[in-house]
Formats: sequence, C-alpha cells, structure tokens
Amino acid sequence: MKNIVILGASGYTGAELVRLLAGHSQMQISALSADRKAGMAYGDVFPHLRHLNLPTLCKIDEINFEGVELVFCALPHATSQRVIKALPQHVKIVDLSADFRLRDVAEYAKWYGGAHAAVELQKTAVYGLTEYYREEIRAARLVAGTGCNAATGLLPILPLLEAGLIDPDEIIIDLLTGVSGAGRGAKEGMLHAEVSEGAHAYAIASHRHLGEFDQEFSKAAGQAVKVSFTPHLLPQNRGILATIYVRGEAEALHAALAQKYADEPFIYVLPFGQAPATRHVRGSNYCHIGVTADRKTGRAIVFSALDNLTKGSSGQALQNANLMLGLDERTGLEMAPLFP
Amino acid sequence: MKNIVILGASGYTGAELVRLLAGHSQMQISALSADRKAGMAYGDVFPHLRHLNLPTLCKIDEINFEGVELVFCALPHATSQRVIKALPQHVKIVDLSADFRLRDVAEYAKWYGGAHAAVELQKTAVYGLTEYYREEIRAARLVAGTGCNAATGLLPILPLLEAGLIDPDEIIIDLLTGVSGAGRGAKEGMLHAEVSEGAHAYAIASHRHLGEFDQEFSKAAGQAVKVSFTPHLLPQNRGILATIYVRGEAEALHAALAQKYADEPFIYVLPFGQAPATRHVRGSNYCHIGVTADRKTGRAIVFSALDNLTKGSSGQALQNANLMLGLDERTGLEMAPLFP
Amino acid sequence: MKNIVILGASGYTGAELVRLLAGHSQMQISALSADRKAGMAYGDVFPHLRHLNLPTLCKIDEINFEGVELVFCALPHATSQRVIKALPQHVKIVDLSADFRLRDVAEYAKWYGGAHAAVELQKTAVYGLTEYYREEIRAARLVAGTGCNAATGLLPILPLLEAGLIDPDEIIIDLLTGVSGAGRGAKEGMLHAEVSEGAHAYAIASHRHLGEFDQEFSKAAGQAVKVSFTPHLLPQNRGILATIYVRGEAEALHAALAQKYADEPFIYVLPFGQAPATRHVRGSNYCHIGVTADRKTGRAIVFSALDNLTKGSSGQALQNANLMLGLDERTGLEMAPLFP
Amino acid sequence: MKNIVILGASGYTGAELVRLLAGHSQMQISALSADRKAGMAYGDVFPHLRHLNLPTLCKIDEINFEGVELVFCALPHATSQRVIKALPQHVKIVDLSADFRLRDVAEYAKWYGGAHAAVELQKTAVYGLTEYYREEIRAARLVAGTGCNAATGLLPILPLLEAGLIDPDEIIIDLLTGVSGAGRGAKEGMLHAEVSEGAHAYAIASHRHLGEFDQEFSKAAGQAVKVSFTPHLLPQNRGILATIYVRGEAEALHAALAQKYADEPFIYVLPFGQAPATRHVRGSNYCHIGVTADRKTGRAIVFSALDNLTKGSSGQALQNANLMLGLDERTGLEMAPLFP
Repeated sequence: MKNIVILGASGYTGAELVRLLAGHSQMQISALSADRKAGMAYGDVFPHLRHLNLPTLCKIDEINFEGVELVFCALPHATSQRVIKALPQHVKIVDLSADFRLRDVAEYAKWYGGAHAAVELQKTAVYGLTEYYREEIRAARLVAGTGCNAATGLLPILPLLEAGLIDPDEIIIDLLTGVSGAGRGAKEGMLHAEVSEGAHAYAIASHRHLGEFDQEFSKAAGQAVKVSFTPHLLPQNRGILATIYVRGEAEALHAALAQKYADEPFIYVLPFGQAPATRHVRGSNYCHIGVTADRKTGRAIVFSALDNLTKGSSGQALQNANLMLGLDERTGLEMAPLFP
Repeated sequence: MKNIVILGASGYTGAELVRLLAGHSQMQISALSADRKAGMAYGDVFPHLRHLNLPTLCKIDEINFEGVELVFCALPHATSQRVIKALPQHVKIVDLSADFRLRDVAEYAKWYGGAHAAVELQKTAVYGLTEYYREEIRAARLVAGTGCNAATGLLPILPLLEAGLIDPDEIIIDLLTGVSGAGRGAKEGMLHAEVSEGAHAYAIASHRHLGEFDQEFSKAAGQAVKVSFTPHLLPQNRGILATIYVRGEAEALHAALAQKYADEPFIYVLPFGQAPATRHVRGSNYCHIGVTADRKTGRAIVFSALDNLTKGSSGQALQNANLMLGLDERTGLEMAPLFP
Repeated sequence: MKNIVILGASGYTGAELVRLLAGHSQMQISALSADRKAGMAYGDVFPHLRHLNLPTLCKIDEINFEGVELVFCALPHATSQRVIKALPQHVKIVDLSADFRLRDVAEYAKWYGGAHAAVELQKTAVYGLTEYYREEIRAARLVAGTGCNAATGLLPILPLLEAGLIDPDEIIIDLLTGVSGAGRGAKEGMLHAEVSEGAHAYAIASHRHLGEFDQEFSKAAGQAVKVSFTPHLLPQNRGILATIYVRGEAEALHAALAQKYADEPFIYVLPFGQAPATRHVRGSNYCHIGVTADRKTGRAIVFSALDNLTKGSSGQALQNANLMLGLDERTGLEMAPLFP
Repeated sequence: MKNIVILGASGYTGAELVRLLAGHSQMQISALSADRKAGMAYGDVFPHLRHLNLPTLCKIDEINFEGVELVFCALPHATSQRVIKALPQHVKIVDLSADFRLRDVAEYAKWYGGAHAAVELQKTAVYGLTEYYREEIRAARLVAGTGCNAATGLLPILPLLEAGLIDPDEIIIDLLTGVSGAGRGAKEGMLHAEVSEGAHAYAIASHRHLGEFDQEFSKAAGQAVKVSFTPHLLPQNRGILATIYVRGEAEALHAALAQKYADEPFIYVLPFGQAPATRHVRGSNYCHIGVTADRKTGRAIVFSALDNLTKGSSGQALQNANLMLGLDERTGLEMAPLFP
C-alpha cells in the first residue's frame, strides 16, 4: 500500500479524492489537512463519508511525511505554491490548484495577477492532461492538474488542431458548468435560491482557464491560437458540457477523434451525430465526446461532457497519481456513472 | 398614494415587498434602506426588478420620514427592535422580524436569548395573523409579522383548537420548507451544492417558531398547548408544506375549516381528502388547506401550503398594511400563483 | 369587457394565458376548451388556478362564439390550422402554434413535413413579433405567435442585421431552454429523473425554429441568412437564454440595441458588458438583452433572456391581443418577475 | 464467476443493478431482458452505461438459463409472479417487485387487488430485509425485495418494537421520497415541470407499503401493529428520508439501535441528537439512522435515510444475492455515496 496525504481536504475536490481513494486497492490515506477545520472528524465535515475510517483533520505542519509517497494538494490558488515549495523532496505531488498549470511566468502573472512564489518548481511541473502527457507524468515529481473547464475543451479539440483538421482562428467554446466548480466557500451567488431555476454566463471573454487553452492549443497547432470562450453556470452540482463551434468537415473530425481515443480507458467518442449529456458521466472518470455536422457546409459542432470533480479534477489527479506511482492508471477509477 | 418606506430592502423579504408594491395601485415607495449596500441601484442588487423606477438604496438615517405613512421593517432580528423604537411616532410599522411576535417578555428571552430593547412597544404590538387579528391590526400602529413556518401551522390548526375538535396534547407538525426562508446571507449550508438533491430535518424540537405556536395555540385552546414540530429543508426556493397529525374526526375538522375560512380572500380549503402542494401557491398570497382521514380511527392529517415569502411574510405584511391604512386588504395581492 | 376564448387550455401555454388574464382588467374568459379533459373543472387540471372562477373545460364544438371578440388558440401544430379555418369570421385569432409562422408554403412543408390545410389564411397571418410587426398586428385578424426560441434569438439580432452592423454569414445562436417548452405531454425524456442534474443539446442543426430565423433574418438583412443554432435543455421550468456569437463592434451593437428598444415597454437592454439571467425574467413579459465584447477583435457576444411561457408565447400572445382589440398593449402584462 | 440474468433491465432498478454489477468481482451478466426494447444496445437505453460491454437487450423467452445461477427480476408487479413461476428450478431468484413480499394471501389481495398467480411460491419466499432475515435469505431460492419506503421505515423501528421500547399504537411515519421510485414510465405527474420546485403528499393513509409495515411490525411486536404513514414526493432523484414520531425514551431508543446495528456493514447509527440527510447516502448501500428527543417528555423522533435505488431496492437485492450465492454480502456494495 502506498501512503498518501491530502492537503486541503475540506473542499469538494478533497472530498472527491477521499471518495475515490475509499475504493482504491493500493493507496491509503495517512493524513488529511484542513487548517481551519483541524481537529474535526472528517465525517463531521462530510457526513457522506462518515462510514470510512479516516484520520482526523490536522494542520499541515502536524503531518509527518516520512513514508508518504505522494501528496494531493487541493489548496487554494497561491497558497498551493508556497506549501508545495516546502514539501520534502521525497514526496511526489499532484496539485489540483491553478498554480503550476501555466509554463510561462508572464502568462501566469497575466491570468493570476501576481509573481509566482515557486518559479523553479513551475518550470518542472507537468501539465496533468493525462491523454497528452502520459509519459511525462509517469516520470514527474510535480503534476499540475488541469482546470476542469480547460480539460473539457482541450480533450475534444487538441486532436483536431494537431491533425490540422480545423481552422485555429475559428474556435468558439460555449460551456455549461455546475456549481461545485466554485467550491464550498459560502458565496451569495452560489446559494440555492440564487442559482436554481436559471442559467447565466459569467467571466465572459475573461475566464482564467483561457490561459490553459492558449498554452495547449497553441502548442498543438504550432501557432498562436486564441479561442472564444463563454462559460455559463447551471443549476446542477456536477458536470460540464462544452459545445464547440469549429470549421472543418464533421465526419473527418469524428474519425480523427475516434481514432485518437480508441484505446483510452476513460474517453468515449459517441457515434457520429450523437451528443453527450453531463448526467451520463456524473460521478465517473469518463469523458464523452460527440461530433455533429452544422447546417452550414464546412462547419461542425463538437461536444464533450465530463464530471468536473472527477475527470475534471480529482479523478484526473488520481489517474495521474497512479501513473506516478507505477500503478495501472485505471485503479480506483472504473466506477460507473450515477444515473439518475 | 400612500408613501411607504422599506427598511432592510436588500434581503429576500425586502425584494418581495418591492415586487408586490410594483403592482399596488395605492402605495408608492419613497425610500429603500440597506446599510451595507447603501448607494447601490436597487436593480443592481435585484436584477429582476431593474425595470422599476426605484429610489437608490440608502442608510436609515438618510431617510426623511415626513409624509411617510407606513414603514415595512425587514431588518434582522434584534436590530429591528432598536430601529423601530427610534422611528417617528406618526409612521405605522409592519415588522417582518421576530422581535415583536411574542407578547411575553420571558418567552422572548427564552427563544431569542436576550432582553428585549423595546419592551413598551412589544406590549402594544399586534400579532400579524390577519385572519385572527384583523380588527386589532386595523387599529394598530405596530404589527409583528408572523414566522413563516408559524403561519403555515397556525392557519389550519387554530380553528380546530378553538372549536375543541382536536386533542391539544396530540399535535405533531411536520413541515417542509424551501431555502429562501433562510435569507440571502451567504452560508455554506445553503449553497446549491449542499441543499439540492436531498432533504434533512433541522432545529429539531427546538425551532424558534415554537414560541409562536405555544403562544397562539394556548390562547386558542384556553390551556397550555405544546406541539411537536420538525421542520425539514427542501431543495425548492419558495414554499412551505405542513403535514399535521391530529386526533379528531377528519370530516368534522374539514367542515370546521371550510366554514371558518369560507369568506377569507386568501385561504382556500380543498375538497375533503385532497392535499395541497407548495408549487400551486408559489408567488401568491394564497394558503391551501386540506384534510384527510388517517387509517386509524379518530385521527386525521391536516395539510397546509403557502409561499413563505408571500403569505408567510411579505404578502402577509402588505395585507396587514392595507388594513392599517384603510385600504381593501386584497389590494396588490391577487396575482395568481406561478406554475410551472 | 372583451369576451375571449382559449382553445387548448389544458397545456402550459393555456394555463399561462389564464394566469395572465386573471390580472387583466379588460378581458374576460367566456370559454376554455380541452378535448380530452372536457367536463373537468379547470382547478382540477391546474390546481394553482383553483381560486379563480372559470368556465368548465369543454369541447370546441360546444362553444358559442357569439359575442366573442378574440380566440387564443393553444392547440398542437397541425390541429391548429384545421380548427382556425373553421372559426367564425367575426373572431380575431392569436395562434400560439407553429402553423401560421412561416409565410412561404414550401418552407412550412420543409420544416413541418406536410401540406398546409389553410393556405389562404396562412397568407394573411401576421408574424407575432410585436416589436417588429406592431402596426400589422393592430390591423390583423390572425396573428401567429413566434416560436419561443425564435423570439429569444430574433429580438437581439434583428436590429443588428437591419443596421448592417454584423456579418450575416457569421451568426451562431447557442441557446439554453427550460422544460416547459416541451409541453405537458408525458414523455420519458422530460421526467424529473431524466432532466434534472444535467444538460444536453437536442435537435442540433435541425430545430424547426430555424424556419423562423431564416425567414425573419433574411428579410431584415435583405439577403439570405442562415444561422447556426444549437438548443440545449436545462433543468429549469421556465426561461430561455440565448448566447449569440457575432462579428461586429460590440459597443456599436450595444448602442444600436439600446436605441432601438429605448421606448419598448418590455425590452430592457442592460448596460454594456452585462449579461442577463433567465431567473431575472421568470414569470414576466420582460426580455433582457446584453452585449459584451469578445476577446477577439471585431467579435461580440450578444445575450438575451426571456420566459418562454410569457414573452416567448402566452405573454406575447396577450400583448398582441391587446393591440388587436385596441387596448394598451401593456394591459395585464406588467407584473414583475418572480425571484427567487 | 457466477452467471446472473436481469429480467426487466430497462427500468431504473435494472440500470442500478447493472451499475452495481459493473463493480462486482464475482458476478457477470449473461442476459438482460426488456420486452419492448428487445434488440436495443443497453448503452442506447442507458447512455451512462455505454462504456460497459453488455449483452444486447432480449426477450425473456430468448434467454438460455443453462449455467445461470441467479436471476434478478425487476419486472412490474403482477407480471413478476407469472414470469418467476416459469423459471427453471435450478436458478435462484431475487425479485424486486411487490409480488412476493406479503406472506398472507389475503393481505396481498387487499393491497394489490387480485388473486396471486403463484401462491405456492409465495409461501416459500423470504422477505428481503437482510438485517432481519439473513439466515433465511442464505438458504432461500426466492427472495422478495422489500419496498423502498418499507425498508426505510422498518430498519429504524423494528429493533424498537422487538425490544418493547416504543408504544406500538403510536407510530407515525412521515416520509420524503425522490422521483426515481416512480420508475421510468412517462407520467404527467413525474415531469420535471410538475415535480420540481415543490413537494406534496400522495397515497395518504393508503400506500401499498402499509402491507409490509403491518406484516413486519406486527411480527416484531407480537401483536397487531398499524402505523400511520404519509409519503411525500420531493424534487430529488434518489433518496428517502423517514421522520418517525414515537413514544419512548429517546436515549434508550438510540442505545438499542446502536447496539442492534453495531456490526452491520451498511447500517450506520449517528450520534444521539443527529439527523441524517438523503444526500449523504446517495448512490450507496448505506442507511443512516438518527434519534433525537422530542420537546414533549417520553416522545422521540427517529430518522432514517437511504437511497431508494440502492439500499431500498437494487443494492439490497445484490446484498441478498451475495448471501444466496455464498459470497461476502458486501461484495460490490461498498462504494461511498456521491456528494455533492
């Protein structure tokens, strides 16, 4: 059994890691941190996990990292980089924050508004999009989990840019996301009364995940790519659905995606003309991708759906951790989605 | 046109008052207060009301009460009593807080945990259950709006206690309530992710509205009455449904309720054996009441449903204000419920 | 008082008409039809309207149209044209079905798959987009209510095409719609368990409202315009949000919309850079429009939100009926939205 | 690997069985039946399970039962008894319908309105409440899964009746249930637009699960016990919460429950004074039980929460099947709940 630690275990991504690890045959949790809730039983913070035998929440500096092989860091942005910098060298790290996603220091400053506190580490971090960086992740000490919206847009579009099948100047990502992506912090705008029975766009043309899109799409296309991106908040707890408008031949796009992901354990390309739904991936590590032709010749609509807490963050993190520890990457991740 | 003022206009009951007053032919809003949001346009705080021509939010001490006939006070408990005490004598007041609901100072201290800051005023306040205190309300300077859960339980049970048709020692009020009753304050427990897709009981055997039940039921029965009361939180924004288990002959109970409320404009007793639903009163000032027989002889189940923001607070407040200002009590309150 | 009749009153648009007419000072309902539910009390079909004094549901052929000035026809597509053809000449008609929306017989056949049974009437019908056909509606005998999705896309885009401010070849309408648009018929795909907690696209690149977009956009642009259009189904009962990607200068678009709709009673253009939410128009006849710049130069995102059952169908129908009967078009339609 | 078959696999309990079996290490699905959907790929009926390699849906008479050890029968009531009667003798059966729950033929006729078609089998069926009939289940050929509401009420109350700690004449079960319990059939009353944003009681004092309550409570108490029972429908997909009003000493009740269930793998008794929530057991086989004192001396409130599709039906069915096949009863059932 591999000993692992979760830092920042009192948020939704932390709880999702605990849920997934409860079904993992080769990892065990040796510590769970949550600064403000240190001293509390985990089951009092997340009653759905009260049946598990878990360590009491503690402060980070109370953790003994001896024998610990890997740390999941689910701390807030900016805090994460400072904490990770101070971790002992022998532990591997999967960071779920945004701190190590952008390789370019200037891009980091642009989107996150400040100097990076761990520039040297930033240089060594591997971007955690498993299907694209699998070999680098296997060898990495520090993996930076992708943004959940970013993953939803990258997975269906990267193969198309790489293959030169779509016009890189004409990509519009329209995205619907659930509320858990905003975290467990108490915010007026996330109250049930404010969010239910409606939908609205937010962070229009300015969402921070644009930094990830720019970085990865430009790399794949071999030229600067700048997408349009409009996220909307939906009254659903989990799930992201991307509807992506592109220029290209729909059937060729579908064929390329089907081929690219044929052997991937968690990416499922639907038959041509079908579109996915968030509720069909809820609670699972699967990503469903669909392609349909637009009514205008030479245009297509590409869809992808995943669970932001699983494939979009904690499931992806565990998939990467499995690779980093030499395990089968599917371990603990093959549960079916929960519907209805 | 009567000039009115709303204090504490940035919460849900304040917004509901503004919504109702927008359709009121004989009242106009001359000031809206919200201490922390003073200076903001009302439409920026509640975009659904942006089409209305409303005063900018201000601080209470900026309000000129000259020419103002009535104040709706939608401030938090405890704050309310201090503010109301300082209002000019010529204004009438409908208070939506809990501060003036309990006539007994000791009961107030027991349920709200402190000495009352306006004991003299408390003595003069009329309890705002329109159907029971109509004449007193007409003559009152200060009316204390009922608790929304309290109103839902009182309306169907008071007539039965008065008529001696049920056993006062055997009343169990099981209640389902929506999230808007908790207000617009940011609380972890009221996030969409925490509240949706589930239900749970809260404040079991200890909810503050028990003070109102005790006061009004005991008065009606002519003896001390102590009910059991379990509220549950539901994933719905508006609406309260009370399911009340009593001892008595179901058909007699139904007949008594039907007779009692035959001429009431907002209370609707369903045919015997039918039960109401919160979604059928949403957004309206109506209360639907139903009675069915239990399978055990001599027992009955009484149901009532109302919208906590309308008949349970702001609609009731307006109905009372109409009476206090000599208007038809239905003015501005006859809109039909919104379904679906 | 004008006597009106509602045919097909047992569906959601029928119930919405009854709700709105309950607050209308100059119309009264003289008959309500629903073939399969004929004989039922309306309050048994829609309990939220049980407090109203309404005619019992009847069959169409039981209705005496003498003295009736206007008929709202909320019957299913195809049925509507046959029924309307047979109505007495003295009644004016607002049809809420799709039967008379398309002026071109060939377009009708293309989108609705059959020959039209009332071609002569079809030629005389006026398209019910009030803000564009107000004078024709005032004089019409038969007005064809717009599709609810169509109205949501047309209102923000028509002025921009007319003014030549956007590229007519580059319009992408991404749309989120609630479940009530699918009607009250029992369909597996509309069950709560199937629809809640998720979102999915449907009728991709093939939705029938494309016929209306093509007709009206082409007319406005003076050339054939073919938009891309992807509707998504959301877990909300009411409301449509359109997110529309266009080429043009965002600030100029905003200025044109603000000017165009400055005097319209129900269209509200938000300050530049703000986006609307469906929950802020729920239950009302308002349409909120917003414009923001895209991050790519020369592109903009235009948003519009309305309630599909109100401004998208029954509210629009009443607004048009008011015009046809010489009344103030706002009568019975100025209620504020219901939030939360 | 044990070969199993699921009859009636196109409903929600069928899909839940498939979901659970996908994570079961010792069972494999050899056939899935669904008469009207025979010939369809399972992933087209339930897209959330499209990643699984499953047999195509077939008709029952196409199934070869050779080598099949156990059949899960998720057919509708009345159909089930006829199909099970005809199954080969060598297969064991877990029936999820109501057909074999009531041991008394007269009770069956009373609640289900007709003669039983397999009276001999009915006599041999074991009631599937695992915690009470574990040894009988282990030896049974036919196990009748409990009603989901019944299980929720029985688990917390049976130990209290057996121990004589509560008054058997004074039990009121107030219950909140999600929509999936009504199945996947298209019914107007289960549409999202009808069910969301509200709650209502149904089958008041007449729900069929009363037959199970009467049977099991009377057996436990050693006298005829007749409870009051009011189920309510909630806008949630999964989950049942029972709030049960009893006469007894709350702390003694809590102690008895804690002791009774101390070693049960799926029953979790919360600390005294805490109440469970449906969202904390969603998607899992756990049942959470809580006890609080009422404000009236000698009365208590007992709560239980479980997922109707898991512990309330398909999870329970699998737990029983594990026992019948000599496996560890927890196999395939220890996944943590899904929250949020």
